[in-house]
Amino acid sequence: MGSGHGAAGKLKYQRIAEELRSAIEAGEYEPGDRLPGENDLMTLHGVARMTVRQALSVLRSEGIVEARKGAGVFVRAFRPLRRRGIQRLASERWAAGRSVWSADVDDRRELVVDGVQVTQEEAHERIATVLGVEPGAPVWARRRRYLLDGKPVMSAASHFPAGLVAGTAVLLPDPGPGGVYARLAEAGHAPAHFREELRTRMPSAGEADELRLPSGTPVILITRTAFTADGTVVEVNDMVLDAASYILEYEFDA
Amino acid sequence: MGSGHGAAGKLKYQRIAEELRSAIEAGEYEPGDRLPGENDLMTLHGVARMTVRQALSVLRSEGIVEARKGAGVFVRAFRPLRRRGIQRLASERWAAGRSVWSADVDDRRELVVDGVQVTQEEAHERIATVLGVEPGAPVWARRRRYLLDGKPVMSAASHFPAGLVAGTAVLLPDPGPGGVYARLAEAGHAPAHFREELRTRMPSAGEADELRLPSGTPVILITRTAFTADGTVVEVNDMVLDAASYILEYEFDA
Repeated sequence: MGSGHGAAGKLKYQRIAEELRSAIEAGEYEPGDRLPGENDLMTLHGVARMTVRQALSVLRSEGIVEARKGAGVFVRAFRPLRRRGIQRLASERWAAGRSVWSADVDDRRELVVDGVQVTQEEAHERIATVLGVEPGAPVWARRRRYLLDGKPVMSAASHFPAGLVAGTAVLLPDPGPGGVYARLAEAGHAPAHFREELRTRMPSAGEADELRLPSGTPVILITRTAFTADGTVVEVNDMVLDAASYILEYEFDA
Repeated sequence: MGSGHGAAGKLKYQRIAEELRSAIEAGEYEPGDRLPGENDLMTLHGVARMTVRQALSVLRSEGIVEARKGAGVFVRAFRPLRRRGIQRLASERWAAGRSVWSADVDDRRELVVDGVQVTQEEAHERIATVLGVEPGAPVWARRRRYLLDGKPVMSAASHFPAGLVAGTAVLLPDPGPGGVYARLAEAGHAPAHFREELRTRMPSAGEADELRLPSGTPVILITRTAFTADGTVVEVNDMVLDAASYILEYEFDA
């Protein structure tokens, strides 16, 4: 029967995709459920294997289902972290020795920092501009990845002006209770003000690899700039988040 | 020559995609530039048309280039709006008669509200829960779309408890200076506190149509809840944003 035009001018694979999507939205297939196999869908709709594969590929590119090798195609299960943008950075939290990121997770789930690398670098142009140093000036970079229940959900790269953090615990792989903000505060550079800038787009191949993203999953890019009370920039943090793993929340007064 | 494996185990189309991506990142092709045509790429790389098409399709699905019918494949030009989440909702602005969304655009670009529809509806479950009414209770919905330089960049659907807005200018297609927040304030329900919740994912076919999204473009979903000073919810606004058209910014104290 092939994949010709049917009712309403839609191609067969589009109609099959639509039918499966509706069934998922109606809860007929729940998160984590396996969809019917290719052979079953071929019989059910009277179409060729290629048509069934096209239909499934539409749902994969929309991020609704994911293929697991040798096991079939499954409805994706979303159980995102809730990241309360403003509350998590409150100085009471880090001054009391709690890490910023621990605010994103409840006791039943495990968020782990992984692959911390601290290196001295020459500031490239954008970083130099934000930090207010000359391009090529020495800066310290702190790179790390965050894993939720074993799955990478975010990578982050912070940059600090070298003069500000030299000889401080900011440069230790584990900066201790309250993290780098508590250490910056002890060194007389307490962050008092933050700006977060968010964009979202499809991942590069490298980002998809690093965060193990199924196809059809965008990334959220957050650039946070931390300022002291007198307006000095003490950190620029570039984060790449698995969009399916996060809900971002900002709460504020009119 | 086909599309066999080459150096480093990459398929030919992947290497061609990578080469084009690097050239775009290096600024060799700038935003708005046309990439070489299929015939030129075939000759240049000594490959079949199908291989060239695969390479271009990779870049399209990444949102880096877009095909324009009959004209070729072009590097996408991003000139996003900067949406300052907190400042734009400051009561000084709408109390002074300025619209919330006018904060997102400078004088050189035109943002237009389009297709306003105001309808009475029965609250479905989620809206009822947030507004604190019974499911099925009467609510008013205000739907509209925003166009930037003629291109749709956002659609939005606000819901209000019926008792709160009946007979007010909140229900007029054009609610007047300062928009619905200024009218709510006049009716004794001034918004004092906001919560914005952000997610991002690939668009449904309907969303892609409505916002005229090229392939490889995610959407950002923002749900804003507006509270009065005593904690009453006066509005739930569900927005769908073209991710390529917006940078979101939130600025706050530690």
